[in-house]
Amino acid sequence: MYSIKELINIVNQELTGTYNTKEPVNLYQPIEYSMSVGGKRIRPVLCLMACNLFSENINQAIKPAIGLEIFHNFTLLHDDIMDKADVRRNKPTVHKKWDENTAILSGDAMMIESYQYFLNLEPQLLSKSLQVFNPTALEVCEGQQYDMDFENRLDVKQDEYIEMIRLKTAVLLAGALKIGAIIGGANTKDANTIYEFGINMGLAFQLQDDFLDTFGDEATFGKRIGGDIIENKKTFLLINALEQDSKKILPLIENTNISEEEKIVQVTEIYKELGVDKLTQNKIIYYYKKALQSMANISVKEHKKELLLVFLNQLKERIH
Amino acid sequence: MYSIKELINIVNQELTGTYNTKEPVNLYQPIEYSMSVGGKRIRPVLCLMACNLFSENINQAIKPAIGLEIFHNFTLLHDDIMDKADVRRNKPTVHKKWDENTAILSGDAMMIESYQYFLNLEPQLLSKSLQVFNPTALEVCEGQQYDMDFENRLDVKQDEYIEMIRLKTAVLLAGALKIGAIIGGANTKDANTIYEFGINMGLAFQLQDDFLDTFGDEATFGKRIGGDIIENKKTFLLINALEQDSKKILPLIENTNISEEEKIVQVTEIYKELGVDKLTQNKIIYYYKKALQSMANISVKEHKKELLLVFLNQLKERIH
Repeated sequence: MYSIKELINIVNQELTGTYNTKEPVNLYQPIEYSMSVGGKRIRPVLCLMACNLFSENINQAIKPAIGLEIFHNFTLLHDDIMDKADVRRNKPTVHKKWDENTAILSGDAMMIESYQYFLNLEPQLLSKSLQVFNPTALEVCEGQQYDMDFENRLDVKQDEYIEMIRLKTAVLLAGALKIGAIIGGANTKDANTIYEFGINMGLAFQLQDDFLDTFGDEATFGKRIGGDIIENKKTFLLINALEQDSKKILPLIENTNISEEEKIVQVTEIYKELGVDKLTQNKIIYYYKKALQSMANISVKEHKKELLLVFLNQLKERIH
Repeated sequence: MYSIKELINIVNQELTGTYNTKEPVNLYQPIEYSMSVGGKRIRPVLCLMACNLFSENINQAIKPAIGLEIFHNFTLLHDDIMDKADVRRNKPTVHKKWDENTAILSGDAMMIESYQYFLNLEPQLLSKSLQVFNPTALEVCEGQQYDMDFENRLDVKQDEYIEMIRLKTAVLLAGALKIGAIIGGANTKDANTIYEFGINMGLAFQLQDDFLDTFGDEATFGKRIGGDIIENKKTFLLINALEQDSKKILPLIENTNISEEEKIVQVTEIYKELGVDKLTQNKIIYYYKKALQSMANISVKEHKKELLLVFLNQLKERIH
C-alpha cells in the first residue's frame, strides 16, 4: 500500500516539465506555471488512494489522476479571472502575470488536456471513467455559477448553500475517488459508496474552511482570519446569521464606513451571540460522521481504509 | 442518402430548447442563446455526411455531431471575449448581452457539454472518436494562440500562416469528417483520407475568406468589404504583401491619420500591384485540387461523394 507522501511524489513527478517545451509557448507556459505552483494534489492523491484500495497496481490510474489535477487547476485559473484575484498560493495569478486573454485560452487548453490524460485507458474503463468525470466537470461549473449568483442575494437558504458547495467542491473530490475505485476494479456498489464518502468529506471540508476563516488560528489556517467577513462572502456562517436575524447583521454588512478590524470583531461577536459557530461545528461533525459511515460500508479490509481516515482527519487543517 | 437540408434539420431539431429549462439559468441561458443564434451547422453536417458515406444509418453520429457544433460555438464565445467583438451573426455576443464572467463560465460549460454528447457511443467507438476529437480541440486552441501572437508580429511567414489556419479552422472540419466516417464504419485508410480532404477544404475555405474580405462583392460576401484591412488583420494577403515589399505596405499599416475608405483603396491597390490577389487565388485552387484528389481516394462509390463535392464547391461563398 502506498503512503500519501509516495502518492504525492508520483503525481509531482508525472507533472514536472510536461509543458515546458510545447508550442505555442504563450499557450503552454501559463499551463506549466499553473501546474508547478503546487498545491496539495488532493484530487489525484484521492484517485490513486481509491484505486489502491481495490488493486495493488495503480499504474493505470496515474494519468487520469493527473487529468483530475489539471482540471482542478483549470477551474482555479478561470475562477481567479472571474473573482479578480491577483494572488494564488503566494504567486501572481495567470491573468496578472500574463493577461486575461492568455488566462482564458490557457485555461481552455488545460481543460482539454485533462481529458487527454484519460484517453490511454482501455475503452471500457475510458467510458466508465468519463461517465463520472464529465457530469462532475459540468457540476463544478454549476457550483461556480451558484456561488456567483449568491453574491447578489441576501436570501440564500442553508440547503441552497450546501448544494452549492456540493457542486463546487465536493463532487470533484468524490469523482476522483470514484474514478480511482473504478480503475482499481471496484464493483458498482463500492464505487458509489466511496463517492458518497467523498461528498460527505467534501462538505465537511468546505464548512470547516468557512468556520476557520472566522474562528481559526491565523498561524495554522495559513491566511488572514476574517477575510470572508471583510468581503461579505456568503459563507455558511453569514447565511445562517442572515437567516436567523437579518436585522442584526445587515447593517454591518452594508456599512462601508467601518474599519476592517472593527467589522471582523463585530460580525464575529454576532456570530457567537447567534450561536452560528456552534451550529457550523455541529454541521461539520454531522458530515464527518456520515463520511465515517460511508467508509464503513466499503467492502475492503479495514486496515486498507487507514489512509482514507487519515485524509478525513485532516479536517483539523484546511483543504485548499 | 440524406440531403444537406435534411441533415441541417436533424441538427437543428436536436438543438432546439435543449438548455431552456436547465439550472442555474445564468449558466444555461447563454448556452441556449449561443446555440440558437444559428449559423450554417457546417461541422455537424460534415460529420453526418461522412457517416452517411459509409453507412445508411446515421443515428449513432447525431449526438457526436451536435457535440462538435457545441464545441465550435464554445470557441466562438471565448474568441469573441478575446477579440472584444460586440456582435456575432447580427446579434450581441454573450459577453455583451450578459457579461464577461458569464461568457467565460458558460463557454467552459459548453466545452464540457460537447464531450457529454460523445458519451453514448459504445466504448470502442467512444475511444476512437475521442482520439480524434480531443487532440483536434487542443489544436484549435493552439491555432487561436498563434492568431493572437501574429497580431504583434510583422514577420509572419506564409507557412506559419497556413499552419495557423490549419489549426484554427481546418482541423475541426477535418475532425468532424473523420469522426463521422469512423462512426459510419470506415476503415483507417478512408478515415485518414477524408480527414485530409477536410484539411485541404478548410485551408481553401479560409484563404477564400481572406480573399473575399478584400476582393469580394459586399452583397454576396455578407459583410463589409475591407474589414480586415481596417483592422490590419494578418491575413494571407497582408502577410504576402509584407513578405514581398514591406516598405510599400508598412507606412499604410502604421498610418493612423488616413480615413478608413482611403486605407481600403490604397491597400487594395498595393495588393493588386504586388499580385497578391492572383497569388491567393492560385493558393485557393491549389488546396481545392488537393481536396479533390483526397476525395478521389475515398473508397466508396462515386455518386455517394456528390455531397462532399457540393460542399467543396461552396467555395464560391464564404464559410462562417
